[in-house]
Amino acid sequence: MAKEKKKKIRRPRAETPKGFRDYFGAEVEERGDMLRKIAGVYHRYGFDPLESSAVETVEALGKFLPDVDRPNEGVFAWQEEDGGWLALRYDLTAPLARVYAQYRNDLPTPYRRYAMGPVWRNEKPGPGRFRQFYQCDADTVGAPTVAADAEICAMLADTLEVVGIPRGDYVVRINNRKVLNGVLEGMGLEGDEQRDAVLRTIDKFDKVGEAGVRALLGKGRLDASGAYIDGVGLSDDQAAPVLAFLTSRAEDAGATLANLRAAVGQSVVGAEGVDELEQIAALLEAQGYGTDRIIIDPSVVRGLGYYTGPVFEAELTFEILDEKGRKRQFGSVAGGGRYDDLVKRFTGQAVPATGVSIGVDRLLAALRAKGRVKGGDAGPVVVTVMDRDRMADYQAMVAELRNAGIRAEVYLGNPRNFGNQMKYADKRNSPVAVIEGEDERARGVVQLKDLALGARLAAEATHEEWKAQPAQIEVARTDLVQAVRKMIAQGITQGDEG
Amino acid sequence: MAKEKKKKIRRPRAETPKGFRDYFGAEVEERGDMLRKIAGVYHRYGFDPLESSAVETVEALGKFLPDVDRPNEGVFAWQEEDGGWLALRYDLTAPLARVYAQYRNDLPTPYRRYAMGPVWRNEKPGPGRFRQFYQCDADTVGAPTVAADAEICAMLADTLEVVGIPRGDYVVRINNRKVLNGVLEGMGLEGDEQRDAVLRTIDKFDKVGEAGVRALLGKGRLDASGAYIDGVGLSDDQAAPVLAFLTSRAEDAGATLANLRAAVGQSVVGAEGVDELEQIAALLEAQGYGTDRIIIDPSVVRGLGYYTGPVFEAELTFEILDEKGRKRQFGSVAGGGRYDDLVKRFTGQAVPATGVSIGVDRLLAALRAKGRVKGGDAGPVVVTVMDRDRMADYQAMVAELRNAGIRAEVYLGNPRNFGNQMKYADKRNSPVAVIEGEDERARGVVQLKDLALGARLAAEATHEEWKAQPAQIEVARTDLVQAVRKMIAQGITQGDEG
Repeated sequence: MAKEKKKKIRRPRAETPKGFRDYFGAEVEERGDMLRKIAGVYHRYGFDPLESSAVETVEALGKFLPDVDRPNEGVFAWQEEDGGWLALRYDLTAPLARVYAQYRNDLPTPYRRYAMGPVWRNEKPGPGRFRQFYQCDADTVGAPTVAADAEICAMLADTLEVVGIPRGDYVVRINNRKVLNGVLEGMGLEGDEQRDAVLRTIDKFDKVGEAGVRALLGKGRLDASGAYIDGVGLSDDQAAPVLAFLTSRAEDAGATLANLRAAVGQSVVGAEGVDELEQIAALLEAQGYGTDRIIIDPSVVRGLGYYTGPVFEAELTFEILDEKGRKRQFGSVAGGGRYDDLVKRFTGQAVPATGVSIGVDRLLAALRAKGRVKGGDAGPVVVTVMDRDRMADYQAMVAELRNAGIRAEVYLGNPRNFGNQMKYADKRNSPVAVIEGEDERARGVVQLKDLALGARLAAEATHEEWKAQPAQIEVARTDLVQAVRKMIAQGITQGDEG
Repeated sequence: MAKEKKKKIRRPRAETPKGFRDYFGAEVEERGDMLRKIAGVYHRYGFDPLESSAVETVEALGKFLPDVDRPNEGVFAWQEEDGGWLALRYDLTAPLARVYAQYRNDLPTPYRRYAMGPVWRNEKPGPGRFRQFYQCDADTVGAPTVAADAEICAMLADTLEVVGIPRGDYVVRINNRKVLNGVLEGMGLEGDEQRDAVLRTIDKFDKVGEAGVRALLGKGRLDASGAYIDGVGLSDDQAAPVLAFLTSRAEDAGATLANLRAAVGQSVVGAEGVDELEQIAALLEAQGYGTDRIIIDPSVVRGLGYYTGPVFEAELTFEILDEKGRKRQFGSVAGGGRYDDLVKRFTGQAVPATGVSIGVDRLLAALRAKGRVKGGDAGPVVVTVMDRDRMADYQAMVAELRNAGIRAEVYLGNPRNFGNQMKYADKRNSPVAVIEGEDERARGVVQLKDLALGARLAAEATHEEWKAQPAQIEVARTDLVQAVRKMIAQGITQGDEG
């Protein structure tokens, strides 16, 4: 049809898919630096890296719903020609389970491994919520002893300090699901439904506090939006042990543990849980981790529903300003715990495991908030092109600079407009521009423009300072490397002073 | 149905999907080390890292065939709820095109970027052929000058040396598609079909050599399997310029360029191509890259069909044994060239670009073949558990060792069987085992077992050596760190001597 023919060829949109993003320059470097430091600590603790494939069978991930045509929401999945479904991993734990089950005869037991890399979630994207993000996990598989849990907590504390969170600005909190189980045992709950309702309520302790949990375990409460939330319907007596558990943290580990023993009453599993916490506290103390770094804190409830034993969380305690300019604590950057059914899905055999996951983006944000990542990108020295027929000479300069370990490049755009070259150097955050025109060439010199100084002078200098500190100097061509190095070094010193 | 009910619950298979693989320990570390060194060189050359999202819209990748229901083979793709198709990137160049088109107003021009990461291909897997693998690319976008191509070649040579390929063991070869275009112009070919047939034939030069190409341009030839392959049907006179082009490499760049000028005859584009090669040779010479590192070599044909200007390839020239024990050259580890239509699909505007892609797995294999990666994994010191009630003491030892920078771990498996602890230490490639039983504890000492020495002695020692070099020593508990450090250092020295 004529109409069809006239249709303009539509160009593809140059857009990152919704919920995905790209990382540029310094962002990539800063994350890389942080992960490298973390890997250094993990290595020292005897953990080995594992990089599993990004793609798993849906059956290995355990996300296939047999009664629908497609795997459920939450994962990106597609069907192979042979009918099997593949999916992108949604975390680093499910692949660890598959890997351990697959290679268990070759791997050491216990198997300490760390993994860093992107994971994918097929969720509705939102502000700051991406469908691809980094995770950084360390897990010990095959160690039933709580010494493994204690080790993870110690490693977490070391890691935070190594990446740049000073002691005093973080705390690792430890709780234990078994203690909670003991508390629940003594409450005389009616069936799993009521038990699950209690668990869900406990999970809100972070947000609603003691009074909120008390109300929600009883008759209910008005939430912030004014809606009435029905409670679980427990009597005050029934609810008391839960509140005792959640608020049992005392001034030291001994007192906290005594409170917990009271809260679990006669429960065997509860007593076991308290014993475990006691052992963990003793192990950490023996290694020199005091309560300034790691504490027993039964108010940690995140993930209590998921884990089967000790649960831990690393919180940053310094304040930042939120989006509305209010001060608030930075909050959690890592969490983990013991999950003893990791491999059972595959082999039928229960394998104890414990591990931690660091929120890579959150920790990076924290380091940025503390000024602990080297700000800005170290731009290259830019050698400008004054005479395009002498490109070989400019390239030779650049080669000299690079061979001396200085980051440098020649301007490779159209050199006609010198202003564009300076704009380029500016965009590249270049510390120094090198200029050699016909005149300089004849006299055996080059001009060095101190761009870092120029920017500072433009921002803040008086006229006298302008004159005293010329932002452009002339040096002998043979002194190029030495003079550039000196100029960069001065820029760094003065930048730090400023 | 009763039969249905009795069916055993099938466990998920613990298997990497077909064509995918996992990387363990040293493999991850070695690749990471290599990529870090490469990034160091790229950084020095002014290239910035870019990490684009692993997922792209199919339209941005340009792999959507409008007449089928699903995107074509070659990519892993899936449909979103809103009907759009997403796919995993199959290389790092298509995402660069999308990113540059998307952010062109914010990025510097020229934009030098490098990218490292996995890409995915939905292909039939085979031995050594995976559906997820690493690529490592560096590209300069927006620079029309061949100085950009020369820079990429220089950077490639530097990179190979920095990762551990000594000068003399590699060569970067450069060719130019424009020269070939000039050659084709003068041949009087009949239409695009014959032209494409000639291009396909040239692409076989690597495999069939001069005589093979001569035959295939003419009447045809018997291939290795005995099948007769029809030729393009050119006369000898017509085929002559192609053969002159392919075999024009002479003892130096000047002679090679003279041969090429003869081969392109009166063609304007051909002359332009020869001029470009001449400029590249001059630029590289000015930067000190002699023909021992980078050469003009018109026999490089890989990718000539794809690129639009200069084409380059890095070849390792040392010999290795192939799977049948025959000596052969290691071959190509990187390739690239100029492709000037990168962004046009998106914006309608032609943007010149040139770049190189390093075959990460091949280069790693080459370094392994040359013994240039630190062999084996540096295992941790293993502190054994002789008395499980004293775990806190063992953890304290481990903490001391780690705080001294020594990789160390306590045995976290069931400690009952000491033999299992030693087997574990063995599997971990541990250099030293620390043993402290009740007796040692009472005397304030620990036993150190030199496992590296033990392994060497077991393999090669005489009885006298056994006696002279006890693989187990007793040291004061207070000397633990110092003694372990000494034992590890000795092991490294003696291992190197052996």
